[in-house]
Amino acid sequence: MSKPLILLTNDDGINALGLYALARAAAGLGEVVIVAPDSERSATGHAITLSEPLRADQVFKDGAFYGYAVNGTPADAVKVGVKALLPRDPDLVISGINLGPNTGINVIYSGTVSAATEAAIMGIDAIAVSLGTFTNPDYTAAARFAAFLGRRLLSRPEGERLLLNVNVPAIPEGELQGVRITHQGTARFDETLEKRSDLRGRIYYWLGGELRIGDESDSSDSKALSARAISVTPLHFDMTDYRLLPALKGWSLDGWRAE
Amino acid sequence: MSKPLILLTNDDGINALGLYALARAAAGLGEVVIVAPDSERSATGHAITLSEPLRADQVFKDGAFYGYAVNGTPADAVKVGVKALLPRDPDLVISGINLGPNTGINVIYSGTVSAATEAAIMGIDAIAVSLGTFTNPDYTAAARFAAFLGRRLLSRPEGERLLLNVNVPAIPEGELQGVRITHQGTARFDETLEKRSDLRGRIYYWLGGELRIGDESDSSDSKALSARAISVTPLHFDMTDYRLLPALKGWSLDGWRAE
Repeated sequence: MSKPLILLTNDDGINALGLYALARAAAGLGEVVIVAPDSERSATGHAITLSEPLRADQVFKDGAFYGYAVNGTPADAVKVGVKALLPRDPDLVISGINLGPNTGINVIYSGTVSAATEAAIMGIDAIAVSLGTFTNPDYTAAARFAAFLGRRLLSRPEGERLLLNVNVPAIPEGELQGVRITHQGTARFDETLEKRSDLRGRIYYWLGGELRIGDESDSSDSKALSARAISVTPLHFDMTDYRLLPALKGWSLDGWRAE
Repeated sequence: MSKPLILLTNDDGINALGLYALARAAAGLGEVVIVAPDSERSATGHAITLSEPLRADQVFKDGAFYGYAVNGTPADAVKVGVKALLPRDPDLVISGINLGPNTGINVIYSGTVSAATEAAIMGIDAIAVSLGTFTNPDYTAAARFAAFLGRRLLSRPEGERLLLNVNVPAIPEGELQGVRITHQGTARFDETLEKRSDLRGRIYYWLGGELRIGDESDSSDSKALSARAISVTPLHFDMTDYRLLPALKGWSLDGWRAE
């Protein structure tokens, strides 16, 4: 059996420390190839680049080939990696380790998650990994857990393709309170738009805000992090709200032309 | 009772004809304000702009004030509109009319849908409207249906906040085969990455591809369009794959530190 092929990517850019920590931890899983955006692409959501040419430049680190830097979004990096750079479809894609949590509603803005989603759309198992802090990150525990989970995915019997969103609390490994299988919660940035005036008197706005965790179930991703546990949320990309289908079918919209 | 306040936006940019058709059709619904990206932002997914200042410039058309052009993504335009430009939260946001369908997996890349999703996250009813063609668009029927559906949302009793993704076939109104309440299907662009060489011999790639509709249920969005019917899909932004929670809980991931 040939070695598994693993594609690593992120949205903080190819020079991010979180990706470096992930690459070191994942080295034992098989053949690892890094294809990542050339610069930070946070909050790019599931954007793809349609109107500009994409390039993949080789990047060297510590005197050796490190990976490919793509001038696009995380989803672009996965597309270019799988369709152009790798010799075959990878067995696993891991995206991260992101500086900052990707929980609650923020998941839909996340470049880290979108890279993993892109892989899943192609039928490839994928993991997105984020660390629950924006400052002084220590990626050790998150990298170890990502490698552990990756090995589990690679060694499991053939089955359904999996897309897992992992968030790891930013605390020393010995203080972690286990692993919870969670659902995406409702936490979100309570956004503010700060109005300012530039030196010529023109108005502009800055987006700011802070994370707000509302009343939500203990089984949510945010609540796991608050309880100092690793959260693992299985995702898919069907946004249909199936609960609402029966009610909407009662709306008799067919009559629209009569109004 | 004061007139309803309706925010219109899109991802094709403030000068798009689809937005103009929508604005004309929606004029009867109440007070209409347009806040849209200053240029085309297709396939931006749910991106937001964190590291650059956002501006909103007034745009005039036919000698009168037409709307605000924001130098950001569709989600940015909704944020700026709701948080900075409108006197109060709008009663409804309509995004579109997009040139090209937003069905199947492509929904997650859609700037049109992301604008509506952004409104829904803020607790505002929202509709995304797309026309099923990329060429020679006639927005008449789609605009009329959008206004009809908007009126329904505005006049219904208080209830759950709704996020509806509407796709209208690009055929004459008289040939439309009713309205179907649908789910997001699995249709997607089967992507190709074309490898080229620039004038200096550097390699670059273009993203291309074509829409592929697989075996999917007759109740999907794409199948409705194929059957010449308008599709209406209720969306939410919880990406959790609840089906997988029980199986994952059996994985005993708590043992990760022992390995």
